[in-house]
Amino acid sequence: MTYCVGLKLNDGLVMLSDTRTNAGMDNISRYRKMFTWEAPGDRAICLMTAGSLSITQGIITRLEKAIHKSSDEGSECILNADSTFRVAQLVGDAMREMQERHRDQLGASGLSSDASVIVSGQRRGGQARLFMVYSAGNFIEATDDTPFLQIGEHKYGKPILDRVMRPDLPIGDALKAAFVSMDSTLRSNLSVGMPLDLAVIRAGEYRFAVQRRIEADDEEFNRISSGWSDALRGAFSQVPEVAITR
Amino acid sequence: MTYCVGLKLNDGLVMLSDTRTNAGMDNISRYRKMFTWEAPGDRAICLMTAGSLSITQGIITRLEKAIHKSSDEGSECILNADSTFRVAQLVGDAMREMQERHRDQLGASGLSSDASVIVSGQRRGGQARLFMVYSAGNFIEATDDTPFLQIGEHKYGKPILDRVMRPDLPIGDALKAAFVSMDSTLRSNLSVGMPLDLAVIRAGEYRFAVQRRIEADDEEFNRISSGWSDALRGAFSQVPEVAITR
Repeated sequence: MTYCVGLKLNDGLVMLSDTRTNAGMDNISRYRKMFTWEAPGDRAICLMTAGSLSITQGIITRLEKAIHKSSDEGSECILNADSTFRVAQLVGDAMREMQERHRDQLGASGLSSDASVIVSGQRRGGQARLFMVYSAGNFIEATDDTPFLQIGEHKYGKPILDRVMRPDLPIGDALKAAFVSMDSTLRSNLSVGMPLDLAVIRAGEYRFAVQRRIEADDEEFNRISSGWSDALRGAFSQVPEVAITR
Repeated sequence: MTYCVGLKLNDGLVMLSDTRTNAGMDNISRYRKMFTWEAPGDRAICLMTAGSLSITQGIITRLEKAIHKSSDEGSECILNADSTFRVAQLVGDAMREMQERHRDQLGASGLSSDASVIVSGQRRGGQARLFMVYSAGNFIEATDDTPFLQIGEHKYGKPILDRVMRPDLPIGDALKAAFVSMDSTLRSNLSVGMPLDLAVIRAGEYRFAVQRRIEADDEEFNRISSGWSDALRGAFSQVPEVAITR
């Protein structure tokens, strides 16, 4: 399985993904699910993928091919598209192409071709934006009312986001929210696993402020994880006891 | 959908269920999912159901019929079965009967006959026990390692149970854990809804210590719910801030 979460803040974008992929419980592998492109000073784009690995790898390959083609022919690609919205459309087109190619055959074998992609980024002159592209190639955008998007195993990590995520959260707090949401998911679902990939884009910057892999022994993440466990147990004991009445 | 949770403690059993049933988002009804039988001084039995309502209502009807038949003929039923384990077997038998009757036709209409039942109770001379009966009529029992069982929309409410549930929790704390777990689910999934049904059996007692409906305006539940929201936000702010490093 997979868990990827993207947060959209007034101060920028936070993206966090795991790296575990499994075909059954006995066939677990590690695959990067976060893909980034940076043209410093012009744009930073981050994709996170969930669902059928053959489909999502195909999408990334198509986007990469278009970038190479564009450097020869000046054709459109995610690195020269005139908006982040247009980038999401290009990802949607690649999704549709992959689905058309494989859906029927996968379906005939009883397999799902479902996939989804979180597209985030910022280009010079534009806003930081966060989209989710569905299997059909259509997409939605995160708004102030719901300033986060999740793909994959999203349920365990949603309650904390429902309670603390607001667009006016500082980036540091948003990182904490993403870590806590991921930590809850890691604990409750074995098919989501370390290491993690993290990327941050600040509002008005056209490069990644943070882009790094978080390994299982990462001190920062483990400090948040154990700090959250302690704080949660503290919070629980702090809630008034229930009086037992018949 | 549905959320039901059963907790098994050294001090007894706590059972909590919601009452919302839906066939699509536009067809929401209220159905009791908790069913209790009490023979004070001899036994207390509590069932909670999830999944296909036609299947689970059929199971309850079969168990009730067997009770009526038993009072005439002295035949076996859940009120005279010689162990709570045997009660779970009788529930499993009723499940199998219902599945055999309806599964093929439901499947032909593209509908699922899946259902599950949490069976809990205590009879004179026995221990408090907690079982989960699956669609196939087989079942598992809660143990000290995993002292809780959930059916229905279980994911949102699982992280808190994973962290705080231990068999040595006092009943008051276990009630709090059940309330908090339910509250997280209510907030994140519209198809789980108030009112709730609550039942408590204390170790060594053969009756319900608590058995009541919790309405949407219940002061105790709302105190826990808002107390938990506050405590959770407090816990979140208490976790050390994440340093942003590239």
